Amino acid sequence: MGKKLYHGAAYYPELWNEEVMEQDIRMMKEAGINVARIGEFAWFTMEPEEGRIDLSFFVHVIDKLYQNGIETVMCTPTPTPPIWFTHGHPERMYVDEHGTVMGHGSRQHACTNNRYFRERAAIITEHIAKAVGPLPGVIGWQIDNEFKAHVSECMCETCKGLWHEWLRERYGTVEQLNDAWGTHIWSEYYHTFEQVPQPGPAPFLHNSSLRTMYQLFSFEKIAEFSDEQAAIIRRYSDAPITHNSSVAFHVDNERLFQNLDFASFDTYVQYDNSPAYLINCDLFRNFKRGRDFWIMETSTSWSASLESYAMAHPNGYLRAEAVAAYALGAEAFCYWLWRQQRAGCEQPHGSVISAWGKPTIGYQSVLEVEQARKEIESVILSTTPAQAEVAMTYSDRSKAFLKTEPHRQLNHRGLVTSFYERILSLGIHRDVIPEGAELDGYKLLFTPFIHYLSDEYKKRAQAFVEAGGIWIVGPLSGGRTEQHTIHTDAALGQWLESLAGVETLYTYPMEGTGTQGQAFGVSAPLGLWSALFQPTEAAPVGVTDGGLAPGTAFITERRHGQGRIVMLGSMPVGEEGDVLLKKLIDHYAAEAGVTLRTDVTNGTIVAPRQGEDFTVWFVVNMDGRGGRVTLPRAGVDVLTGAEVQPGVLQMGPYEHRVVRFPN
Amino acid sequence: MGKKLYHGAAYYPELWNEEVMEQDIRMMKEAGINVARIGEFAWFTMEPEEGRIDLSFFVHVIDKLYQNGIETVMCTPTPTPPIWFTHGHPERMYVDEHGTVMGHGSRQHACTNNRYFRERAAIITEHIAKAVGPLPGVIGWQIDNEFKAHVSECMCETCKGLWHEWLRERYGTVEQLNDAWGTHIWSEYYHTFEQVPQPGPAPFLHNSSLRTMYQLFSFEKIAEFSDEQAAIIRRYSDAPITHNSSVAFHVDNERLFQNLDFASFDTYVQYDNSPAYLINCDLFRNFKRGRDFWIMETSTSWSASLESYAMAHPNGYLRAEAVAAYALGAEAFCYWLWRQQRAGCEQPHGSVISAWGKPTIGYQSVLEVEQARKEIESVILSTTPAQAEVAMTYSDRSKAFLKTEPHRQLNHRGLVTSFYERILSLGIHRDVIPEGAELDGYKLLFTPFIHYLSDEYKKRAQAFVEAGGIWIVGPLSGGRTEQHTIHTDAALGQWLESLAGVETLYTYPMEGTGTQGQAFGVSAPLGLWSALFQPTEAAPVGVTDGGLAPGTAFITERRHGQGRIVMLGSMPVGEEGDVLLKKLIDHYAAEAGVTLRTDVTNGTIVAPRQGEDFTVWFVVNMDGRGGRVTLPRAGVDVLTGAEVQPGVLQMGPYEHRVVRFPN
Amino acid sequence: MGKKLYHGAAYYPELWNEEVMEQDIRMMKEAGINVARIGEFAWFTMEPEEGRIDLSFFVHVIDKLYQNGIETVMCTPTPTPPIWFTHGHPERMYVDEHGTVMGHGSRQHACTNNRYFRERAAIITEHIAKAVGPLPGVIGWQIDNEFKAHVSECMCETCKGLWHEWLRERYGTVEQLNDAWGTHIWSEYYHTFEQVPQPGPAPFLHNSSLRTMYQLFSFEKIAEFSDEQAAIIRRYSDAPITHNSSVAFHVDNERLFQNLDFASFDTYVQYDNSPAYLINCDLFRNFKRGRDFWIMETSTSWSASLESYAMAHPNGYLRAEAVAAYALGAEAFCYWLWRQQRAGCEQPHGSVISAWGKPTIGYQSVLEVEQARKEIESVILSTTPAQAEVAMTYSDRSKAFLKTEPHRQLNHRGLVTSFYERILSLGIHRDVIPEGAELDGYKLLFTPFIHYLSDEYKKRAQAFVEAGGIWIVGPLSGGRTEQHTIHTDAALGQWLESLAGVETLYTYPMEGTGTQGQAFGVSAPLGLWSALFQPTEAAPVGVTDGGLAPGTAFITERRHGQGRIVMLGSMPVGEEGDVLLKKLIDHYAAEAGVTLRTDVTNGTIVAPRQGEDFTVWFVVNMDGRGGRVTLPRAGVDVLTGAEVQPGVLQMGPYEHRVVRFPN
Repeated sequence: MGKKLYHGAAYYPELWNEEVMEQDIRMMKEAGINVARIGEFAWFTMEPEEGRIDLSFFVHVIDKLYQNGIETVMCTPTPTPPIWFTHGHPERMYVDEHGTVMGHGSRQHACTNNRYFRERAAIITEHIAKAVGPLPGVIGWQIDNEFKAHVSECMCETCKGLWHEWLRERYGTVEQLNDAWGTHIWSEYYHTFEQVPQPGPAPFLHNSSLRTMYQLFSFEKIAEFSDEQAAIIRRYSDAPITHNSSVAFHVDNERLFQNLDFASFDTYVQYDNSPAYLINCDLFRNFKRGRDFWIMETSTSWSASLESYAMAHPNGYLRAEAVAAYALGAEAFCYWLWRQQRAGCEQPHGSVISAWGKPTIGYQSVLEVEQARKEIESVILSTTPAQAEVAMTYSDRSKAFLKTEPHRQLNHRGLVTSFYERILSLGIHRDVIPEGAELDGYKLLFTPFIHYLSDEYKKRAQAFVEAGGIWIVGPLSGGRTEQHTIHTDAALGQWLESLAGVETLYTYPMEGTGTQGQAFGVSAPLGLWSALFQPTEAAPVGVTDGGLAPGTAFITERRHGQGRIVMLGSMPVGEEGDVLLKKLIDHYAAEAGVTLRTDVTNGTIVAPRQGEDFTVWFVVNMDGRGGRVTLPRAGVDVLTGAEVQPGVLQMGPYEHRVVRFPN
Repeated sequence: MGKKLYHGAAYYPELWNEEVMEQDIRMMKEAGINVARIGEFAWFTMEPEEGRIDLSFFVHVIDKLYQNGIETVMCTPTPTPPIWFTHGHPERMYVDEHGTVMGHGSRQHACTNNRYFRERAAIITEHIAKAVGPLPGVIGWQIDNEFKAHVSECMCETCKGLWHEWLRERYGTVEQLNDAWGTHIWSEYYHTFEQVPQPGPAPFLHNSSLRTMYQLFSFEKIAEFSDEQAAIIRRYSDAPITHNSSVAFHVDNERLFQNLDFASFDTYVQYDNSPAYLINCDLFRNFKRGRDFWIMETSTSWSASLESYAMAHPNGYLRAEAVAAYALGAEAFCYWLWRQQRAGCEQPHGSVISAWGKPTIGYQSVLEVEQARKEIESVILSTTPAQAEVAMTYSDRSKAFLKTEPHRQLNHRGLVTSFYERILSLGIHRDVIPEGAELDGYKLLFTPFIHYLSDEYKKRAQAFVEAGGIWIVGPLSGGRTEQHTIHTDAALGQWLESLAGVETLYTYPMEGTGTQGQAFGVSAPLGLWSALFQPTEAAPVGVTDGGLAPGTAFITERRHGQGRIVMLGSMPVGEEGDVLLKKLIDHYAAEAGVTLRTDVTNGTIVAPRQGEDFTVWFVVNMDGRGGRVTLPRAGVDVLTGAEVQPGVLQMGPYEHRVVRFPN
Repeated sequence: MGKKLYHGAAYYPELWNEEVMEQDIRMMKEAGINVARIGEFAWFTMEPEEGRIDLSFFVHVIDKLYQNGIETVMCTPTPTPPIWFTHGHPERMYVDEHGTVMGHGSRQHACTNNRYFRERAAIITEHIAKAVGPLPGVIGWQIDNEFKAHVSECMCETCKGLWHEWLRERYGTVEQLNDAWGTHIWSEYYHTFEQVPQPGPAPFLHNSSLRTMYQLFSFEKIAEFSDEQAAIIRRYSDAPITHNSSVAFHVDNERLFQNLDFASFDTYVQYDNSPAYLINCDLFRNFKRGRDFWIMETSTSWSASLESYAMAHPNGYLRAEAVAAYALGAEAFCYWLWRQQRAGCEQPHGSVISAWGKPTIGYQSVLEVEQARKEIESVILSTTPAQAEVAMTYSDRSKAFLKTEPHRQLNHRGLVTSFYERILSLGIHRDVIPEGAELDGYKLLFTPFIHYLSDEYKKRAQAFVEAGGIWIVGPLSGGRTEQHTIHTDAALGQWLESLAGVETLYTYPMEGTGTQGQAFGVSAPLGLWSALFQPTEAAPVGVTDGGLAPGTAFITERRHGQGRIVMLGSMPVGEEGDVLLKKLIDHYAAEAGVTLRTDVTNGTIVAPRQGEDFTVWFVVNMDGRGGRVTLPRAGVDVLTGAEVQPGVLQMGPYEHRVVRFPN
C-alpha cells in the first residue's frame, strides 16, 4: 500500500463457480479493478464443520487475482458464524433491548462477547492469517464487517456478566458507582455490581448514566474484539489492518481504529446529499492521521435490500465521488459489490456487473472512475492533503450521550452534518477530528454537540487557545459530566465557564419561546436546548431579543492567552439562523487568519493538496449543477497540461479539474 | 344450487334464544333472505366439552329455516376452538413472527397445523357432516372462516417440524436446498433440514428464498387442512363446498379452491373504491370456471370492530353492488350479518337488523337488493357471463414474493387493482385469472407484477401467443426464479428474453432518475424497479428520454407465431403515466381485435351476459355520479319490457339497466 | 390545613447533602415556599436493606423544614421498591400486555398486587406513619406517586389469580359471567373462572367485556392498595391523606379518592392549552366536595425527560395558573420540583432552582406567584367557590369503555376537554363532576361520552329532571350495558328512551355520509357514531338534512316532571358544529335559568367565589392575549382597594383582577 491508488470491489467467489470466477477476473481487468476485498461472510466456506478448516479455496482465489494484477484485502468472516455455531445455542446469540433472541440466517446474529464465539473467531482468524498472510497478493486486512451496523447493545447473559466486570473496573466499588450515577434517585441503589441491570424493559426511562455507560461498555467490547483479531493477524502478516466502519454504526470509531492500521468506511449516502458523504472523508482521514483512508464500500449506483432502495446515481456522480475521495485523502475507492448477488437479501443491490455477468447501469461510471483514477494517480501520490486550519470535533461518545438524551428526537449525525455543511459551504478547507486528536496546526476549532467534554479534551483545547487558537464551544456542549449527570457547580461546569468568562444564567429549551438571537447584524430565531450567559470576563457577541430573557448573551467571546474562547449557547435556526451561523464561522475564520479557503460556489468543492514545491487544487462539482471558483493565480491544468489563467474557473456538472500552482 | 339467485346472511342462532330465532326467521322472510350461513364459530355450542358432541341444535335450526323457505350453508367451526382445547396448551396456539404465543379469546388463535387440532377438527367436522349433511335445507358447505385473515405464517414448534418435512419433500436433499437458495451467502448453509430456521427474529433480513418458501409452505398447509375437511364432508354430503376467502388473506386462493367446489369471497371494500370490489368478482369467477361464485360476506352498510369502522354506504350503493355481482357471475349476495352482535368485538358492525331486533340504516337497501334480485333472476339464470377477450393474471404466490421483496413498501393488492382499474375504465369486458387458468378464448393477456413466471405458465402463454394472442409482460414480471433468486442467464431469464426478442440491458429503480418514457404519443415519468431493453428480434415501442440511459426501449413488441409478445419494462407513473398505460391497453386491445368493449363512462360498468340466442348487458352505475354508454343497436329493457333505441343510454346514480339484444 | 394558601415544591433532600439542604431551605424561604412534599421515591433511603428501616433522616428533614416555617406533605415511597425487593424476583414485577416483564431501574416496575409487595409496602408505611406522623410539621400525606402513570393493567400471574377472584365476586358463577359477556360468541365460553384469560396477545381483538372488566379490575385493585395504605397511616396520624393523580393515568379517580381525605392532581398541560388545565380544577374540586384540592405538581416553566420536553411557559403564565387554581378551589399550588435533579432520567425537567443552586428561568415566575398568593390569601380564605349551576359528568370508567372501543382512535380526554371548553368559552361557571356526585344545586347537566349509564346515575338524573333540571344526554352516551355489551331492548336501553320519549331508529358512524344537522338556526356536519331518533313523546329540536336518513331527529327534547331531558344523538363537527354546540349550550343555559355566567372573552376566565355577604370575581387572562368582561355592577378591586365601575373591565395579558361585589 501507499504506492498506488486503488480501485476496488467486494468480491464473493465462494458464491460462484470457477468458470464465473474466470469471467469475473477478466471483466475486473477490463473495468480497471485492481483490488478485491474477499472473505468477510465466508466462514462456512472456510470451516464448513466445526474444526474442519480449509483455506485452500481462498489461497487459490488470491493467487489467481494476483496473477491478474489484482491485489486483495482479506477479511475475517466473523459477522456470520455458520450453523454449527448457532444451531441449538440461543445462549450464543445477540439479544435485543426487548429481550428477543436472534436466530440464524442474517448477520451479526451472534453475541460478539460470547466466550465461545471469541474462541472460534480466534481459531478461524489464526488459520486465515497463517494461510493467506504470506501470500504476495494480500496487501491488507479487514476485521469482520460493519460492526454493530444491524445491532447495538447486546442484552444477553454473557454481556450481563461482562457489564458487571466492566463496571467493577471502571468504578472500583459499587458505592462509587452509586455516587457517580446518583442512584438514590428512584431508589435505584445497588448493593453489588451484580445487581446493576442491563437497560432492558422498564415502565419508563432508565437512569441516564446506566444507559450511556452501557453504550460505552458495548463500544469498548466490540473494539476489544477487534483488537484481539488484529493481534492474531499480526502474528502472521505485516499487511495493514482496518475495519469498514461508519458513523452510522454503534461503535466508537476513535477507539476502534486505535489499534488498527488504517481507517476505512462504507458509505451509501444518496447523491443529493453530498455533504454527508464528504464529512466522512474529512473525518476518516483523521482517525489514522498521516495514513490515507479507504472507502471500502460504496455503490456504483444505488444501494438496496429486499425492503428498500436508494435512488440511482445520476451519470457523472460516481466519478465526482471518487475524485473527491482521492483528493481528500483516500487511497482506495471500492464498490460493494462486484457481481450482483443471485440470492440472499441483498439481491437488488447495485453492483459493477449483474448476476448474469453483464455491465450494470453503473458500469459506465466505473469506467469513468478508472479513467479519472489513472489521470490523477501521479499527482495524488506526489502530494498530501493540505493541513487544514479549521477543525470540528466529532465524537461517537457524544452520539451515545445524545442517544440517551435526545431531547426531541435529536439525531446526532444530522446535527453534526448540518453544522459541517456550513463550514464546507464557506469554501473552507477543514478537518473533522476525533476527540483525542492533537490540535497542532489548527487556527479555529469548533466543538458543537458534545454534551460531555473530557479533561484531556479540555486541556488540549485550553492549550490551543493559549497558543492563539479560537475555540468555539457549542451548541449543546459541556452541559453533562462524564457520568452523564448534571454539573453541580455551574451549568456547563465551573472549568468551562471560568475559562470562557461567563456565568450561565439559564438553560432551557428555546423552541416556542419567541426568542430571536441578534449577532453579526443578523436576527434569527433560536432553537434547541440553550444556555444563556452573564458575561463575567467575556464580551457579549450575540444577544437575545424577545422570549423569556431578552437582552441576554447567547454568544460570548473572551480573549485568553494568545487566543479566544467563544461560547455559542444556542442554535440559530431557520433561514436566518443559517445566515447567522455562517456569519459566525466566516467572522472567526477571518479573525483566526484562516487562509485556506476559496470562494467556491455551493455544491462544488476545492480540495487542496500539498506537493514538495507546489500546491494542487482538486475542484469537483458534487451537485450536478456546475459551479465556479476564483483561481488566485495562474496554474496548470494537470489533466490537460494547459495553462490556466487566474480568475473564475467555470465547472460543469460533476466536472473535476486539477490545477497545479507553484508554491 | 344453480337454480336461483341467493340473497343471504350470516346467522348466529346459538347466541340468542328460541324466541329471537322465531323473530329472526319471520324478519328474514320479510327481507327476502333465502339462505343463511351458520355455524362457523359455534364449536363450543356443538362440543361444549371435549368429546361431548351434540348437533341437535343446528339440526333444529336448519330444519326450521328450511320450513320457512330459507336454505343453509353449513360451516365447520374450526376458527374458534373452545377453551377445553386451548386452556393450558400454549403448544397448540399460533405463534407470530416475534415468537409471541396467542391466548384464548379471539379467533385463529390455534395453530391449524397442530396435530391435535387437526384431529379434533376432523372429529367435529365428521359429526357435523353426519348430522346435518342429509338435511334437505343444507345446500352448501363452508370450511372454517376467512383462513389466515388475522394471522399469517405460524412459527410454532409443530410448524417447524412440518416445515422441515415440506422442505425435504420439495428439495429431496439439503444440498439441493442449499444450492437453490444460495446459502453460501452469509454462511447460511444448512447441514440438515432440521437446521433450516423459521424466519423469526434476526438482526437484518432473512434470505429471500427462506422467506418466500415459508410463505408457500404456509399456503400449502392451510390448503391441506381445507382439503382434509372437505374430504370428510364429502363422505356424508353431496352439497358443494367452499371457503369464504379474500385476496387480502395470507392464502394461495388458486391452490385453496383446487379441491373445493365453488369459490366465494368476503368483501368490505368501501363504497368509494368500487374497482377494488369489482376485481374480486372478475377474479373469483375464474377460480372455479363455469361455476358461479358467491359473495359470502359483505356489509349492508359499514364494517366495524371495536377499534375501527368504514364509512356507511350511500343509499343505492348496496343494490348496485348486488346487481353488479349477479351480473358478473355471482349466484349469491350475502351479508355479514343478519342480527347485530350484542357482545364480542364486532358489536358495532353493520347488519340487517339491530341487536334489539329493528331494521338498521342498511335495511332499506336490503329490500332494494331483494327487489332487484327478483327482477333480474330469470335473465341471470338464462344467461352466463360473456367470454372475456382480455385477461389479467392474478397470483397470490406473486403476493408472497412481493411480501418478501417489497422494494419500497409496494403493496401487491394496490398495484394489481390499479392496473386492473385501467382495463376496467376502458370499458373492456375482462377476466382476472389465476396463474393456472387455461388461456383459450382470450385475445389479450396481461401479466403484470409477477416476479416469477412458472414453466407451466410460460408454456401456456407461449402457446397463446403462437395461436394469435397478444401477451403483455410486466411491469415487474419475470425477474425472479422459482426459488426467489435472481436469474443468472439473463435479467428476466433467457427463455423470456428469447421469446420476446430482447436483451435486458439494465434493471434498476427508476424513481428519481428523471426518466421519461415515450410511447403512443405520450411522455410520462417512469417509476418502479424497471428493465430496459435492447431489442434483438423485437421492435421498440416505448423509448426512454432523459435519465441514465436515454433512448433505450422500455416497451418492445415482437411477432411470434400468429401473435405478439410485448414487454413492458417499466411503470409509467403520474397522470401522464395513467394516460400512457391506457393508450397501451387501448392500442393492444384494438390490435388484438377485442370487440367486447363499450364506451361506458368511468364509474359505470357494462357486464355482458350471453343467452342462447341473445346478449344481455347489465349496465350499473357504481360511483353514484351516474354515467352513460352508447348502445350499438336497439334492444329491450328487460326490467320494463320497453324498447331501447340505439345511442346513448343515460344512467342515474347507482342506477342499473338490463338491456337485451338479439344475437 | 384549611388556614392558609400553600405554595409548595417537591423536595428530595435524600439526593443531596446537609449543606445543600441548608441552602435549599434558605432559598425556599426567599421564594415563599411554605410546604414541601417529600419521600415518595425514597424507599431505599428509608430501608436500604430488607427490614433495616430508619426514618431518622426524614424526621430530621421535616423538623428542619418546620423550624423554618415550611410544612410537609409526607409520602409513602412505594412507586420505587429498592433492589432488595426486585433483584432476582421477576415474579414480583409488572408485566405488560405483550408479556414483557419489567426490570429494576425506573418506577412502577413492581406489580402493586404482588402479595409480598403489599406486605413490604405495609411495613414501610407503618414505620413512616409511626415515625413522622406525630411531627408537627406534617400537615398531610400522599400515598405513593402518580399511580398507573407509566403502566396500565398488569398481566402477571398474581394478577391472573386476583382477576379470577374478582370475577368470582362480581359474577358469582361462571355461568353468569358467560351470560353477561355473551361468551358463546367465537366459542369463548369458560367452564371455570380460572379459564378466563387476561387480555394478552391474540390474533384479533378480545371480547369487549373482557377488556373493559380487566380495566375495572385494575382500577379497583390500585384503589384497594391506596385504601390499605391510608388505613395504616390513619392509625398514627390525623393529617389528611391524598394521592397526586390525574385523568391521564389508568385509575378510576372517583373510586380512588373515595377513601382519601382530599383530592390533588399533577398537571403538565402546555401553556397554550389552558382549558385542559382548567378542567382539572373544575373536576378535582368535586372529588371531595367541600374540601379544597391541591395542585401537587406543576412545572415552573417546562416539563422534560431525557427523551422529550414541553415548551417553556411565557412570562406571566405561571402566576395566571396559580391565581386561577386558588380561585377555582385549590388550597395549594406546588411545583415539581424544587431543585433540578443532577442524575436519573428527569435531569432536564424544569424546577425552581438549578442543580447548581441558582434560580432557573422559572424562578421569577415563582416569586410572582408568591406575591399573588399573599395578595389573595385572605379573600380566598374568606370565600368559597360559588355553587355552579351547570355540571358536566366526567367518568374514568367511561374512559375504560372508550379504550376498549375507540371507534376511530377516539381519545376520551380530548373529547371531554373539547366539550368542556365550549361551556367554559360561554362564560358559564361550571362543575365537572364524577358519576357518583349528588346533583343538588345544579340546573343543567351534561352527560356526554358516557357509553354506560349506571342505574344509580340514571336514578339521580331522573330525580334531577323531575325536580326541574335540564339533562342533556350525549353524544355517545347510553349505548352500552354495564357489561360493555349492546342493549337488546333498545339502542340506548329502554329506560333512557322511554324517559327521553324517543325511539332510536338507527345508530351508525356519521362521518362521510354527508349528513348535516339543523338546529338553533345553524347547519353543521354531523360526526362520530350517532343515534337518530323517532320522537315518541319528545319534540325534535335538531333534524338531519342530507345523508342516509334526511329529516330525522338528532336532538330531541321532552318535558318530564318539572324539567326536561334532551337527547343529543350526534356530534356536530367543524366550525359550524362548534357554533351549533355552543348555541345548544347557550339555549339550555338560558332555559334552565343559569345566571352565573358572564360575557368574558375567550381565553379569560371568571371564577366567582362566595363570601358571607359578598361575592368575589377572580378574573384571569389565561391565553396571554388579554381580554375583557362586563362587570354588572360596581365593586371593589380587592388588590388595590379602588372602586371599580360597572361596565367593561379590560384585562392585560396574563393579568388577574379580583373584584368584590356586595351581595
